[in-house]
Amino acid sequence: MRSSIWGAHGSWIAPNSTRGSIASGCSSMQTSPQWQKPMPVRMLRARPAAAPHASHAMPPTLVFDVNETLLDLSALDAPFNDAFGSPDVRAEWFAQVLQSALVHTVLDTYADFSAIAAAALDMIAARHDRSLSEAEQTAILDTVRELPPHPDVPYALDRLAAADIRLAALSNGSPDVLHAQLAHADLTAYFDEILSAHAVRRLKPAPDPYHMAMDVLGVSACDMGFVAAHTWDVAGAMRVGCPATLVLRDGVTPDPLAPPPTHTLPTLHALADLLDA
Amino acid sequence: MRSSIWGAHGSWIAPNSTRGSIASGCSSMQTSPQWQKPMPVRMLRARPAAAPHASHAMPPTLVFDVNETLLDLSALDAPFNDAFGSPDVRAEWFAQVLQSALVHTVLDTYADFSAIAAAALDMIAARHDRSLSEAEQTAILDTVRELPPHPDVPYALDRLAAADIRLAALSNGSPDVLHAQLAHADLTAYFDEILSAHAVRRLKPAPDPYHMAMDVLGVSACDMGFVAAHTWDVAGAMRVGCPATLVLRDGVTPDPLAPPPTHTLPTLHALADLLDA
Repeated sequence: MRSSIWGAHGSWIAPNSTRGSIASGCSSMQTSPQWQKPMPVRMLRARPAAAPHASHAMPPTLVFDVNETLLDLSALDAPFNDAFGSPDVRAEWFAQVLQSALVHTVLDTYADFSAIAAAALDMIAARHDRSLSEAEQTAILDTVRELPPHPDVPYALDRLAAADIRLAALSNGSPDVLHAQLAHADLTAYFDEILSAHAVRRLKPAPDPYHMAMDVLGVSACDMGFVAAHTWDVAGAMRVGCPATLVLRDGVTPDPLAPPPTHTLPTLHALADLLDA
Repeated sequence: MRSSIWGAHGSWIAPNSTRGSIASGCSSMQTSPQWQKPMPVRMLRARPAAAPHASHAMPPTLVFDVNETLLDLSALDAPFNDAFGSPDVRAEWFAQVLQSALVHTVLDTYADFSAIAAAALDMIAARHDRSLSEAEQTAILDTVRELPPHPDVPYALDRLAAADIRLAALSNGSPDVLHAQLAHADLTAYFDEILSAHAVRRLKPAPDPYHMAMDVLGVSACDMGFVAAHTWDVAGAMRVGCPATLVLRDGVTPDPLAPPPTHTLPTLHALADLLDA
């Protein structure tokens, strides 16, 4: 049975907005003072917003971010501890990876995510007055390809797939790393499509990768639910009109200035539970 | 006497580029594999690149970033320690401020930098399972207006101003905070113009604020040197063709994927010393 509580998807109301109504359905997006200039939603040939299915059912396609959302980065704690004497440097590194990726997008340049990850490691090492050996670098960057799934992932994907929800993956990671990661985590078979932002040379949360996913999957924004454990990724998906779920992995907190996610859930179990809601 | 070592400004060579030549002067920018699609440099009515002054003299106008570059954020350690029991949370907060600002720019939305700073504080508090009292929030955010200058700042600005270098400030901070900060630090009098990105509703490193500064100051990119203690800010200025200096404040490290800054210096004393070089 499909969920009936995706009704708020496509809404564009910031928490502090003084406007009262919540727009439902892709074709009636509304701006808030903080989120001006809404982007045009492509493929508005979606079902009419008033139809119950369009405004309430779980979208027929769910697209998942990969790193942190499906895969557990804490497997990197060991090689970071070996290299830096502290596992906490892992979070500092990943924050630098994200910052560098965002800066490339703002400057309208592009670099492969693996190159960004390696450069960010150099930057963090310099910040800690360290020069990593090639073995230390390799131990960290190779582990990225061998991350385990979070424990809730296989069960939740099983249930969603069994309910005829089509599943896809959309990552900023370069294609070879992305495919290696999902294969190692034994998740490849769940996904109809495994998509890298590399195909459009623009990283999430720029609109291009989400639009690319819609094009490849042949669905409208209304029909593509997006799931991520990053506020910026959820914000990017909602910006192009997709209903989106923020998964509160360790350390993840909603952004009070961003439009609230369609769902904010503790685990993917809770996402699968929406099938019964 | 003006410096003669700004000759590499406007160059656009990434460190790993295989191309050998360094372009000098605004009108001969070159792309590297990592930095495609160079933005058009506005106001190309600069002096010819071959003229010694154009390619070698210290630019007649220097524009300074403010937070971290001129002002010492470590004054925030005390209120962060009071609120969180650790001063280290300050760096985590400022990293979230920058991430949120970048995400707004990528999504083509805009929020006032003070609102971003307050929202980032909420996010960090939630991440640490804390709910800050209004007094704790106020203690932190009010301290932002009362940061001291780094010790090297007044002397360096004195020397630069005495050498007829025109000085300006360009900050992402909202105008009232920016003016309060510079007044409290007793730096206001140094600057011909005190400019906030708020005027163009786009935050650095988007090109708009740098272009706005050129417009207000009536100078070309070649004639506007930019100085910041952030790799992303220096990258943004260089992207629009300005020679730029990265100041290696505590924890600042160059990005190996970005074009190298025109100068990478430990302090503003070293910047003023370029007058004698």
